[in-house]
Amino acid sequence: MKKELKKTDSKLKIIPLGGLELVGMNITVFEYEDSIIVVDCGLSFPEEDMYGIDLVIPDVTYLKENVSKIKGFMITHGHEDHIGALPYVLKEFNVPIYATKLTMGIIEHRLEEHGLLHTTKRKVIKFGNAVSFNHFRVEFIKTNHSIVDASALAIYTPVGIVVHTGDFKVDYTPVFGDAIDLQRFAELGKKGVLALMCDSTNAERPGFTQSEKTVGRTFDLLFEEHKNTRIIIATFASNVDRVQQIINSAEKFGRKVVVEGRSMVNVIETAIKLGFLQIPDNTLIEIEQLKNFPEEKTVIITTGSQGESMAALSRMAGDIHKKISIGPKDTVIFSSHPIPGNEKAVTNVINDLLLKGADVIFQDVHVSGHACQEEIKLIYSLVQPKYAIPIHGEYKHLKAQAKVVNQLGIEKEDIFILHSGDVLELNSDSAQVTGKVPVGTIFVDGLGVGDVGNVVLRDRRNLAEDGILIIVLAMDMFDNHVIAGPDIVSRGFVYVKEADGLMEEARASVNEALAYCTAKKITDWGKIKGTIKDSLSEFVWKKTKRRPIIVPIIMEI
Amino acid sequence: MKKELKKTDSKLKIIPLGGLELVGMNITVFEYEDSIIVVDCGLSFPEEDMYGIDLVIPDVTYLKENVSKIKGFMITHGHEDHIGALPYVLKEFNVPIYATKLTMGIIEHRLEEHGLLHTTKRKVIKFGNAVSFNHFRVEFIKTNHSIVDASALAIYTPVGIVVHTGDFKVDYTPVFGDAIDLQRFAELGKKGVLALMCDSTNAERPGFTQSEKTVGRTFDLLFEEHKNTRIIIATFASNVDRVQQIINSAEKFGRKVVVEGRSMVNVIETAIKLGFLQIPDNTLIEIEQLKNFPEEKTVIITTGSQGESMAALSRMAGDIHKKISIGPKDTVIFSSHPIPGNEKAVTNVINDLLLKGADVIFQDVHVSGHACQEEIKLIYSLVQPKYAIPIHGEYKHLKAQAKVVNQLGIEKEDIFILHSGDVLELNSDSAQVTGKVPVGTIFVDGLGVGDVGNVVLRDRRNLAEDGILIIVLAMDMFDNHVIAGPDIVSRGFVYVKEADGLMEEARASVNEALAYCTAKKITDWGKIKGTIKDSLSEFVWKKTKRRPIIVPIIMEI
Repeated sequence: MKKELKKTDSKLKIIPLGGLELVGMNITVFEYEDSIIVVDCGLSFPEEDMYGIDLVIPDVTYLKENVSKIKGFMITHGHEDHIGALPYVLKEFNVPIYATKLTMGIIEHRLEEHGLLHTTKRKVIKFGNAVSFNHFRVEFIKTNHSIVDASALAIYTPVGIVVHTGDFKVDYTPVFGDAIDLQRFAELGKKGVLALMCDSTNAERPGFTQSEKTVGRTFDLLFEEHKNTRIIIATFASNVDRVQQIINSAEKFGRKVVVEGRSMVNVIETAIKLGFLQIPDNTLIEIEQLKNFPEEKTVIITTGSQGESMAALSRMAGDIHKKISIGPKDTVIFSSHPIPGNEKAVTNVINDLLLKGADVIFQDVHVSGHACQEEIKLIYSLVQPKYAIPIHGEYKHLKAQAKVVNQLGIEKEDIFILHSGDVLELNSDSAQVTGKVPVGTIFVDGLGVGDVGNVVLRDRRNLAEDGILIIVLAMDMFDNHVIAGPDIVSRGFVYVKEADGLMEEARASVNEALAYCTAKKITDWGKIKGTIKDSLSEFVWKKTKRRPIIVPIIMEI
Repeated sequence: MKKELKKTDSKLKIIPLGGLELVGMNITVFEYEDSIIVVDCGLSFPEEDMYGIDLVIPDVTYLKENVSKIKGFMITHGHEDHIGALPYVLKEFNVPIYATKLTMGIIEHRLEEHGLLHTTKRKVIKFGNAVSFNHFRVEFIKTNHSIVDASALAIYTPVGIVVHTGDFKVDYTPVFGDAIDLQRFAELGKKGVLALMCDSTNAERPGFTQSEKTVGRTFDLLFEEHKNTRIIIATFASNVDRVQQIINSAEKFGRKVVVEGRSMVNVIETAIKLGFLQIPDNTLIEIEQLKNFPEEKTVIITTGSQGESMAALSRMAGDIHKKISIGPKDTVIFSSHPIPGNEKAVTNVINDLLLKGADVIFQDVHVSGHACQEEIKLIYSLVQPKYAIPIHGEYKHLKAQAKVVNQLGIEKEDIFILHSGDVLELNSDSAQVTGKVPVGTIFVDGLGVGDVGNVVLRDRRNLAEDGILIIVLAMDMFDNHVIAGPDIVSRGFVYVKEADGLMEEARASVNEALAYCTAKKITDWGKIKGTIKDSLSEFVWKKTKRRPIIVPIIMEI
């Protein structure tokens, strides 16, 4: 029996802590009086100019300040941009996690790596079931996506139902398990839904996303066409259905399968353990066993479909993989599309593979995991929400969904594109953005979380651009006369052999600055450093049109 | 009357000094005995990891060593990847340039900037005409491309005719001038062609590239649809035909036109001067005059279609353009496709424009300037060469053309994919790669040409990744005791306020290293520096999993 949700005159607050400005960091707060639930907790990967940064996680100050209210994290599926920040955030405050089975399996693996597994409460939820908190009830609804066990959420609140699709597509013929539970979306729509938060990733694309099963048929054709070579297939580590279909084709054509790449091995182990992947006996072999089978009787499933420099496929292409080398007896299949920003890296890997003589297939062996326009229209037509809140994607994707939704008859003023930190307050007949909470990004670099900020990044960008010039001198602390130096050391500036004369002139410019200070009786070391810096900087700019970082160091003797 | 080409038993050498490994740097040597002609002289733009580099130009050592043989540069068209390195190379050795009218106009502008205009011999060639040298005759043949006045070359040599397409497409309905001279290609084919060097850029794409004129029709439709807003169109600076069509639509709809962005202004000025662009009176206005016209009666043609950070459109999107600000009364049209590697930058600009309220159109307002598969087949079928040498593109593009050509019946052993520096020797009935000449890249950074090499770049990469730690100490030159320091200064490593403790420990680790040196009676300063570096490096890695560059500096007192 369902508990009645406590109702008062308060409003529901929906607050994305990531999203729009912080794409990839999917983390959304639902707040009603003294209760908070959080949907997803993702990380994003560094932009091109975030030198040295490994991961980017959301600033959860708002949650830390309201930690007593938090009932838990509701996780829609097991991709990094939905679960990746969990280990970092849970170190700040530990609250329970709710998710479906495979999603939880993947999360648990991550928690274990961070030593958090035994201290974190977890509850696996089945599709169709719900969990209740003070003011909220959250029901998990079956959807389809490029990772199995993905879920939409129906969030029952005192002011109405909010449906959150997570990342999804409509796959009428999924590889594993059921199709998306369209009937449930319709049922909720009949009851009346206050707001729909719907995936916008593919909102620019007309039509329908193809079924994952179509890729299986493509594999069969490719296996048939390439009977005489080894086959290497790169795909996303977490796409269990894709791996299942490769294994199906391998079995059909009598090939043994090797899985290569740490992240892929991890996901596959979890998927097998939890029953999401069926592998016939004697199909999987270890990489060391490859030599025992003819090349044309083997398949290697590998990471690296995005051209990531340290992933297995890139190492094969670059001839630095310890166990696999590529040659004319290989067919390499990219079962993926490059994620925006990775196009060049992927192309480089393709060129390297071709240069080694491999046949490379990189078109039309992939389908997206996200809903296109017709699917978005379908979900809206079933759910018929009062308010639309496009989510997941860059601004252009959210705008594209807004356009589609508007065509369906939802008025512009009922469509909300929320910026990170926006507080949207709703009750049963109104919705408006009423304020903003602090949001931001925290950089993870090596073991450091948050110790690299914008100043350090700015320095790294300047260092990358023009290098550094270090000027060292020793000064007498009483009368300021120069005891030793100035010496100039550079890194990343010019090839010094080529620049002997330049460095000599640079030293002269420092000496001039020192002479100026003496003449002007400048004794403050800060000012002396400033004068050296300005003088050298001007000299270098005039001579080279470059602006290296200049660091004057005075040793006190 | 045509002179007979001197014939001996020697072979023709074709040597790409750029190309494959050095895509963009199109520069190909044709050598026969004591004569060399060079086709094109392009530069390329830095790869993502070439920090601080502005331009990349080819190493022309081979040409310098054979300078007495060189008859001149034959330039196919005015794009950077075909002319950009000319000013740098001409400073090394000055030889004449041959090109068609607009191409020469663009080159002259470049030579003027480098102070080379009056010292460089130049000859404008008309389509259908040829220039003769000792062993060579070079005929310029009309083609179509995304810049007007593009040319193919028929290179008559003592061993046979080599046809070089340059960059081209087949446009039956060009905006300016004639369609590609297919009859001449056929005529040459009838005579007998030894080798065809054909553009591969679009060799992966089936079908035919659309006519440039189709974009004009799209402009008309878009101008009709967006009658009530200002229109801003970003496209490639050098696409004169595109600019012509925008001006045609502007005139049709009674709008004034502003041209914004230095490189575009330059090209347009040259094109007008030479008669390649027809602009009705009173259509072009200065940017300052914009305020005198209603927004919906103006068009701005601008650079920045590739998301280049300093281009006009990016400055408008980022609100740092001094004269134009974007708002809801703007329609911005990208008349371009992102060049591979620029996708993310373009998307960022689109998002910024949308966030300012502008309507942004970025699909299907562009056609390529390169031949697709059916056009490649057409040219091969007209020319019917004995040997095929796919050019222009990455390895995957050249391979794609090789596949197409093979389908046309040219045997694999008659198709040559040349690597940079490969020497292909041909006579009338044989062709083989017989050797390699030195090739490479030279980096241009600010005013420096070649003073940044791989060592400097490696340092910049390391600096970008993890920053730098500088350790300074003053030592007595007689007894090696430390007089001052060690002081540690860092840039781009960690935010120091956050890392007080870390820096303290780091200094301790340096002191330990010094104590070790004293204990072991190590007096060689090189070894002392090495010990400090190793000790600090290990400490930092253990604590942070980062590898900053470590620079120990010892001052001698």
